[in-house]
Amino acid sequence: MIIMSEKVHSHQHHHHHHTKAVLNRLSRAIGHLESVKRMVEEEKDCSEVLIQLSAVIAALNNTGKVILKDHIEHCIVDAWDHGNEEAMENLHKAIDRFIK
Amino acid sequence: MIIMSEKVHSHQHHHHHHTKAVLNRLSRAIGHLESVKRMVEEEKDCSEVLIQLSAVIAALNNTGKVILKDHIEHCIVDAWDHGNEEAMENLHKAIDRFIK
Amino acid sequence: MIIMSEKVHSHQHHHHHHTKAVLNRLSRAIGHLESVKRMVEEEKDCSEVLIQLSAVIAALNNTGKVILKDHIEHCIVDAWDHGNEEAMENLHKAIDRFIK
Amino acid sequence: MIIMSEKVHSHQHHHHHHTKAVLNRLSRAIGHLESVKRMVEEEKDCSEVLIQLSAVIAALNNTGKVILKDHIEHCIVDAWDHGNEEAMENLHKAIDRFIK
Repeated sequence: MIIMSEKVHSHQHHHHHHTKAVLNRLSRAIGHLESVKRMVEEEKDCSEVLIQLSAVIAALNNTGKVILKDHIEHCIVDAWDHGNEEAMENLHKAIDRFIK
Repeated sequence: MIIMSEKVHSHQHHHHHHTKAVLNRLSRAIGHLESVKRMVEEEKDCSEVLIQLSAVIAALNNTGKVILKDHIEHCIVDAWDHGNEEAMENLHKAIDRFIK
Repeated sequence: MIIMSEKVHSHQHHHHHHTKAVLNRLSRAIGHLESVKRMVEEEKDCSEVLIQLSAVIAALNNTGKVILKDHIEHCIVDAWDHGNEEAMENLHKAIDRFIK
Repeated sequence: MIIMSEKVHSHQHHHHHHTKAVLNRLSRAIGHLESVKRMVEEEKDCSEVLIQLSAVIAALNNTGKVILKDHIEHCIVDAWDHGNEEAMENLHKAIDRFIK
């Protein structure tokens, strides 16, 4: 269930350099996760399922890093210069949730 | 790309207690990841995308723990008692890859 | 503050193969953490402090894996064969806390 | 072994808001790690050692988040406004290493 603030955020005005790359990564991760699901359905060895699941998690972590770096470099600096403190607060929340 | 040994492994003879729960978790994670992808397509705020991506990663981590605990309790102990050292080696490899 | 059950646990009868290696790893991590602390005192660049802190965290994670694998291979299998279900429950708790 | 560039970095001119808090956290983590080491010396139950080690790792992760957020808010924005791209590159390296 996704909770999203509908509030228009100045964020929409920033071009994201890595959107295409992020979308490709997410598509690959979805495909890989579907194949992990098939492994479980076919009762493949648990160690092999865990190794493939770890690969998906690592890929999603790397995708998150691409988003975070892109966001800091393009959205945060720009928002901060326009006095938009909310963008920094939202980034802090995202860092807290993303870094375990 | 999934590399899987076709070798018949005594593993197939162990009933997995949590297969249904694991399959449900993976289906939910796939659905959630598709919605994260839509958020990126719609250029939603990066912080919100990161928060939802973190939720998917956390869910997959928890799924891995269910598999790992089930595997240790049912497969490993049984395999070890039958002198199957390969099962323990595979578990070690899986632990190395799964725990970052 | 460490909360530890004083209950005698059959665990004490299992020889740990990796105790010396684990102790060396922990000593190195303590030394490395002290040097990270000095970096902060000397106001070194935050990125460099973060990189060194990540190295300590990675080293401690690897130490945890050594303990976990040693524990599964020597304590858990033995405890399970002696009908000691508590050892498995404690392992599950440790896996839940250790894998984020 | 700590590799640190001796290059004077504009970073020294930024006051860190959380230095005292970071130093306290690191001191506590060092103390906690020393007590984990004593647990291993006293052959305490591996599951309990793992739970305490996880607590140290979690504390260090949280310390890293405090440093990262402080760095983004005070050093990066300021460095970027002064055309110091190196600070952003160093932050990217730190994010890559810190987020596993």
